[in-house]
Amino acid sequence: MTLSMVELIRAKRDGGSLTDNELAWIIREYTADQIPDYQLSALLMAIVFNGMTADELSAWTEAMLHSGKVLDLTDLAIPKIDKHSTGGVGDKISIPLVPIVASCGVAVPMISGRGLGHTGGTLDKLESIPGFTVDIDPSAFVDQLADIGMVMAGQSETLVPADRRIYALRDATGTVPSIPLIASSIMSKKLAEDLDGLLLDVKVGAGAFMKTVGEATDLAHTMVSIGARHRTRVTAILTNMDQPLGQAVGNANEIQESIAILRGEGPPDVRELTLAFAAEMLVLSGIADHAKALRAAENAISSGRALEMMILVTERQGGDPATIEDPSLLEIAPHTFVIEAETDGWVTACDAYAIGTAGVRLGGGRATKEDVVDPGVGFSIDAKIGDYVTKGQPLARIAYRDTAKLKSALAASSTAWEISPNKPAIPPLIIETIR
Amino acid sequence: MTLSMVELIRAKRDGGSLTDNELAWIIREYTADQIPDYQLSALLMAIVFNGMTADELSAWTEAMLHSGKVLDLTDLAIPKIDKHSTGGVGDKISIPLVPIVASCGVAVPMISGRGLGHTGGTLDKLESIPGFTVDIDPSAFVDQLADIGMVMAGQSETLVPADRRIYALRDATGTVPSIPLIASSIMSKKLAEDLDGLLLDVKVGAGAFMKTVGEATDLAHTMVSIGARHRTRVTAILTNMDQPLGQAVGNANEIQESIAILRGEGPPDVRELTLAFAAEMLVLSGIADHAKALRAAENAISSGRALEMMILVTERQGGDPATIEDPSLLEIAPHTFVIEAETDGWVTACDAYAIGTAGVRLGGGRATKEDVVDPGVGFSIDAKIGDYVTKGQPLARIAYRDTAKLKSALAASSTAWEISPNKPAIPPLIIETIR
Repeated sequence: MTLSMVELIRAKRDGGSLTDNELAWIIREYTADQIPDYQLSALLMAIVFNGMTADELSAWTEAMLHSGKVLDLTDLAIPKIDKHSTGGVGDKISIPLVPIVASCGVAVPMISGRGLGHTGGTLDKLESIPGFTVDIDPSAFVDQLADIGMVMAGQSETLVPADRRIYALRDATGTVPSIPLIASSIMSKKLAEDLDGLLLDVKVGAGAFMKTVGEATDLAHTMVSIGARHRTRVTAILTNMDQPLGQAVGNANEIQESIAILRGEGPPDVRELTLAFAAEMLVLSGIADHAKALRAAENAISSGRALEMMILVTERQGGDPATIEDPSLLEIAPHTFVIEAETDGWVTACDAYAIGTAGVRLGGGRATKEDVVDPGVGFSIDAKIGDYVTKGQPLARIAYRDTAKLKSALAASSTAWEISPNKPAIPPLIIETIR
Repeated sequence: MTLSMVELIRAKRDGGSLTDNELAWIIREYTADQIPDYQLSALLMAIVFNGMTADELSAWTEAMLHSGKVLDLTDLAIPKIDKHSTGGVGDKISIPLVPIVASCGVAVPMISGRGLGHTGGTLDKLESIPGFTVDIDPSAFVDQLADIGMVMAGQSETLVPADRRIYALRDATGTVPSIPLIASSIMSKKLAEDLDGLLLDVKVGAGAFMKTVGEATDLAHTMVSIGARHRTRVTAILTNMDQPLGQAVGNANEIQESIAILRGEGPPDVRELTLAFAAEMLVLSGIADHAKALRAAENAISSGRALEMMILVTERQGGDPATIEDPSLLEIAPHTFVIEAETDGWVTACDAYAIGTAGVRLGGGRATKEDVVDPGVGFSIDAKIGDYVTKGQPLARIAYRDTAKLKSALAASSTAWEISPNKPAIPPLIIETIR
C-alpha cells in the first residue's frame, strides 16, 4: 500500500477522518523511518486542533501497540491487572498497591515511568532502595510474574517503540496536550502488557496534567473506550491532585511512607486511595465483588502478607530487603529546613504543582531526561488543606543537601500554602469512577 | 538571544502572539539550520489554524525578505513598479504588460514563477521563445533594468532563501492554504525587489487558489497592509478566474496571444485586464492619474512602441526577435483535436481548473517540479461563458503531440463546459480594487 502522507495531513487538517489502514500505515512507515519527522509533527499538530474520532483513536492505538513486541502472558493462569496513574506529586500509591494486590492472588505486571516535569516517577522512587533494579527484559519479566505474581519494571526498548519516538517528537513540537494523543500513548503501552484489566488513576487539579474535571473526564472516557474496543476491562478513577498525596514528596521518603502503609500506618489519604485501588483491581480481576475485595485488601495489610510480598519483590529485583524491614536504613539528606506558618488560620491551599516543582529543584526530580535524581531529598508535609495552624507551626520540613538548591526550592514553594481565617471545604479525594 | 522553539510553538498553538524578535529569531535560525524542519512544520500547522496578527505578519515578512540579499535599485531614477498574480489558467497578462508599462517610462523589475499544479507560469511561457533565458543574476538584473527599464526573470537563489525553504516544507506538510503564510511568501519576494509600488492580481474562482471572494478579499487586504507597513504602495485587484483568460492555454500559444495584444488585437478579456493593470501601475508610479494612465497604455499599443519594447527585451534576454515579429514561427504541436458542443445552448461554465489540469496532462505544465514542459501543446478556446453554441460547433481546439496524453487531457476537461438552454449572467472580470 502506498499512500501520500501530505494528502493524509491535508485530510486531517481539513477535519476529515483517516481510515484504519491509513493510520496503521502512518505508524508503520514512521517507525521504519519512511515518513520524516517534519510530516508527522504537522499531522500531530493537526490532531491537537481537530482531535480524532473513536474509530481513528482505536486504530492508531492498535497500530502503536503492535509497533514492537507485545508481552504474551497467556500461559499465566491467574488474572493480570495493572494500574496506571497520569502522574501527580507524592503519588507513591503503586508501591504499596502492587504487593497488596499480588498477595490476593492477582498478577500485577506493572510497567512504570520516571519523573518528568514537576511529577515524581515510580521507578525513581524504587531505585532509592539500595540495589533495586527496574531494568528487566521481557523474558525475565514473564518469568518473575509467573514465579511471584508481580513485577515493577521500566519500559523495555522492544515494547511499543512507536510511542517512544512519537512522544519524543511531541515533546519537541508542542503537541503533548491532546486528549487522543495522551490516551493512545498510555493505552498502547498498557495494552502491550497483555492485561485482563486495567485501573487508571486520572489525576485532576493544580498538580496534575489535567487541570479540570472536564478534561480529566474526557481523557478517562477516551481511555475506557479504547480498552473496550480492545476487549480489555478498564476502570478510570478521577482523583484530586490539588495538594500532594500523603506527607512525603521525594524518593526515599516516599518508600518509607509506602512501607508505613503496608504496616497499617501512614497518612489516611494514601491509605484510602491504596485500598480503593486495590479493591477496584480485585473487582476488575473478577475474583471478588467490591465489599469482599476491600476486605481482602485490608486483610492483606493487617495479616502482614503484603509487607512480606514487598520484601519478596525487593529481593527478586536485587534490592536490599533490610531497608523494607527497617525503612530508617534508607538514606535521607542530612540537613533539615522547616517552613513555618506566617499567621494563624486554616490551610486553604497546599499547591501540589509548587511543591512538585520545589522537589525537582531540590534534586529529587528531573528538569531534563539526563538529570540524576538525588533519592534523599524531599518534603515532609505537616499541614494540608483543612488543617488549622498557628503562627510559627511547621507547614513542612525539607530534607536537603545543597543550600543553593534549597533556596531555589523555597522560591518555588513560597506561595504553595495559603492560610485563611475561614475554614475551607476539603475536596473529596475520589471524584468519580468511570467504567 | 536564545529562545526555546518549543515554547514559541506552544504559545502559537494556544492562540498567543509572537514578538518581532521571536519571529525574526525563528526565520534566522531556521535558515541557518539551527531549527529542525519538524519544529517549523508544527509551528506552520499551528499558524494554519490560529493565523497571525498584523504585527506578527509584518515582522515575519520582514524577517523573510532579509533572509538573503535584497535588490538595491536606489540608483535608478525612475519609479519601479511590479505586478504579481496569484496564479490562474491562461494568465499571460504579465507578458504584454511589462513592455507596455516600460514604454511609458516606468521600470518593471519583474520576478516571476513557474507553473505548478493546474496553473501556468510566466517563465515557462517566455521559454517557449527560442533562446529566451530567465536566469539572470542580481547584478545583470540591475544593469538590464537601468539599460532598458524592464526585466522578466526567475527568482535568484540569493533572494529570500527563507521563502524557498519554507515553501518546500509547506508543500510537504499540508501547510500551504493559510492566508498569512501565502501573503508573507508573496510579499517577502516582491518587497525584496526594492519597489516603489506593487500591483497584485488576486485571482478568484474555480481556476484560482482562492475559491471565494471572501478568501481573496482577506488575502488582498493582508498583502496591502503588509505593503503599507513596509511603506510600499500596494494595490490589489480581485479578478475572476472561473474560466481561463483569453483563448490560449499553453505556452507558445500564450506568447502568440500576448503579441496579438501588443498589436492591438487578441481577445477582449486579455486586452481589458492588460490595459487596466498597465493603467493601475502607472497610477502607482505617480506619473499619471487614472484617465491619463489608461490613454498612455492604449497609446503604447497603438503606436507600436510596446511591441518594439517586447522585441528589445527578447533580444536582451537572448531570445529570437523574429518570433516576436512573426509569432507563427513559434512551434505549435502538430496534431489538432476539436472538442465539439454536444448540444445547442448557452455556455454556462468553462471550468478553468479542469482546462488547466488538462493542459498539464497534455505536457504543457508540471505535475512535479522536475517535469519538463512541452511548449507547443495547449488549448485554444472557442466558446466561453455567455456564448451561444450549436451542436457540433467547436468549443476548443487542442494542439497535442502524444495520443495517450491527449486522452488523459480529455478525461480532465470532459466536464469543463456546461451548456444550458438559459442564458447565463457573465461574471465581471474585475471584481474589486483594494488599495
